[in-house]
Amino acid sequence: MSDFRWDPLKNTWTITANHRERHPREFFIERQQITMTTCPFCPGLEERTPPEVFAIRPPGSPTNGPDWQVRVVPNKFPLLRIEGHLDRHTEGLYQAMQGIGAHEVIIETPEHAPWLSDLELGQMVRVFQAYRERLLDLRRDKRFRYLQIFKNHGIEAGSPVPHSHSQLIAVPITPPVLKTELNACRSYFQTNERCLICDMIAQELTDGRRVVYSDEHFLVVTPYASSSPFEMRLFPLQHNHDFALQNDTELANFAVALQSTLLKLRSLLRDPPYNFILHTAPPAHPRPGLPDYWSSLANDYHWHLELVPRLNRIAGFEWGSGLHINPMPPEAAARHLRNTDPSPGL
Amino acid sequence: MSDFRWDPLKNTWTITANHRERHPREFFIERQQITMTTCPFCPGLEERTPPEVFAIRPPGSPTNGPDWQVRVVPNKFPLLRIEGHLDRHTEGLYQAMQGIGAHEVIIETPEHAPWLSDLELGQMVRVFQAYRERLLDLRRDKRFRYLQIFKNHGIEAGSPVPHSHSQLIAVPITPPVLKTELNACRSYFQTNERCLICDMIAQELTDGRRVVYSDEHFLVVTPYASSSPFEMRLFPLQHNHDFALQNDTELANFAVALQSTLLKLRSLLRDPPYNFILHTAPPAHPRPGLPDYWSSLANDYHWHLELVPRLNRIAGFEWGSGLHINPMPPEAAARHLRNTDPSPGL
Repeated sequence: MSDFRWDPLKNTWTITANHRERHPREFFIERQQITMTTCPFCPGLEERTPPEVFAIRPPGSPTNGPDWQVRVVPNKFPLLRIEGHLDRHTEGLYQAMQGIGAHEVIIETPEHAPWLSDLELGQMVRVFQAYRERLLDLRRDKRFRYLQIFKNHGIEAGSPVPHSHSQLIAVPITPPVLKTELNACRSYFQTNERCLICDMIAQELTDGRRVVYSDEHFLVVTPYASSSPFEMRLFPLQHNHDFALQNDTELANFAVALQSTLLKLRSLLRDPPYNFILHTAPPAHPRPGLPDYWSSLANDYHWHLELVPRLNRIAGFEWGSGLHINPMPPEAAARHLRNTDPSPGL
Repeated sequence: MSDFRWDPLKNTWTITANHRERHPREFFIERQQITMTTCPFCPGLEERTPPEVFAIRPPGSPTNGPDWQVRVVPNKFPLLRIEGHLDRHTEGLYQAMQGIGAHEVIIETPEHAPWLSDLELGQMVRVFQAYRERLLDLRRDKRFRYLQIFKNHGIEAGSPVPHSHSQLIAVPITPPVLKTELNACRSYFQTNERCLICDMIAQELTDGRRVVYSDEHFLVVTPYASSSPFEMRLFPLQHNHDFALQNDTELANFAVALQSTLLKLRSLLRDPPYNFILHTAPPAHPRPGLPDYWSSLANDYHWHLELVPRLNRIAGFEWGSGLHINPMPPEAAARHLRNTDPSPGL
């Protein structure tokens, strides 16, 4: 179906789809648009998705019936499959393992519309409750080292389906981006006995130039070293390493901050394509023979959301170096966003 | 003009352009196409570029006149500037330094056409001679830790100018991608007293499934853990860490392999957008107070070219995890490319 392959030069993993032979013509640039006649995420077409793994429904509403508010289903074309063993092995200088994991779609609303920001706050909270429940359920599977929740909005951000949804992918390795972040936080805590992200929040609030939005629960900033224009991070002010431990009140505070941020972005940049990625602590499974490294993250990690509009291309320099070029200073981006009314609609 | 900014969470640098205030409308998705009436890279318009830093011309042809074969000029809108001091400093938890570097354009032909693969082999060798000369010249500047040569072909690969050219960017830091590669090679050599890339070449030749092209001087493969469809690496069979040490015969061998590879790619995938990146050893300047780490690379590094068609998008999962998803198994990609005639033209 797919496998994880490790490159000794780049020291990283790629997920390679092996399950279906594709013809080169599927990769011609002009054919990348997808057209759909009916939307498989709309109510009444539940049989066109795999059976739901979670849903928020009125009491008594039957599973896989149309009367849902938020619905989570396995991806019909999953990148990774949940059954099987990792079978980690070498192939000469290379390494591989089976494409074990989970790939789920969180359908955020029964309405056929692309904007998470248009949902009522109560509905946004239901979406976050679905995130929380899926994190709590999937982390019981000890094969998964990380559960990544993310959203693709717009064709250029990787979403061909114009019905508001996000995704969850569970992987059997700690993703490199998260590992770097966890190591940075761990190292900072060991030196300073303080949380790196708490200290970043304090510095940003004092400085003020990169603040997009703040209230008594959340801070939204354009990062000091933003890698792309109008990139943002949403931080809860209250230290907590784990999104899955947030109660409903905290989820409601998050909804207020995220809705305002998404509306500003949409209004200022005419509904740009964007991705967001939830950064939260990995499941803390002690592993035999290894130091119990991630099991004590409560002090040194701090969950947050990364929001990245897809406005510039990655070209040869960025790909080859790993360095990003940002044509928009984050201080100017924050000023524009701060001054934009979060009014609904375009 | 620009600065390098360091992010403590991601532990990496971004180049932030500060020299010109951009309006958010410059980032609206529909405005990203560039139209040009005349091409500044064509002969006769030399005054529209900064004065050349290198050119291959017939004997007696005046500098900055029209009679050139290959011409290297500073980028008119440089990302980095060559004058000044790094001024590395902290801003609270962050770090920054001035945007010192070099940014040059190698105009590969006087003909106004987009295809490097259409050049005669002798002209391709001149392009590589220009690479070599610029590497040798710029590495005398001890502020530069790396000189990256790359090519963007096609709008989707970041090139709005349809006149065949490549670029060189000199940076005052070792780029993360290269550092990972150098460390992998160093570590492998320390354990095995062999070059990792020489051993990869041997394994690929024995295996055969990922071979796209081979002759007595070069091997072209789709990497075992290719991060995107039809990605390729071109390896010289003869161990050498440094592109700048290649003689004209070796450059001619490289031209044969690269031309054949580019023609196959263009024919199979209908002139896809692509990037290529030259991976070569960094300048080996001993630095006071630091171990002379990169000065003895001759044994353990091995220069090569990375060629990446831009056929799929980076979406939320890839951005947030650092893991890539490749929908095309490299063995199938190699088979298609191997079976494609490298005939010129579309």
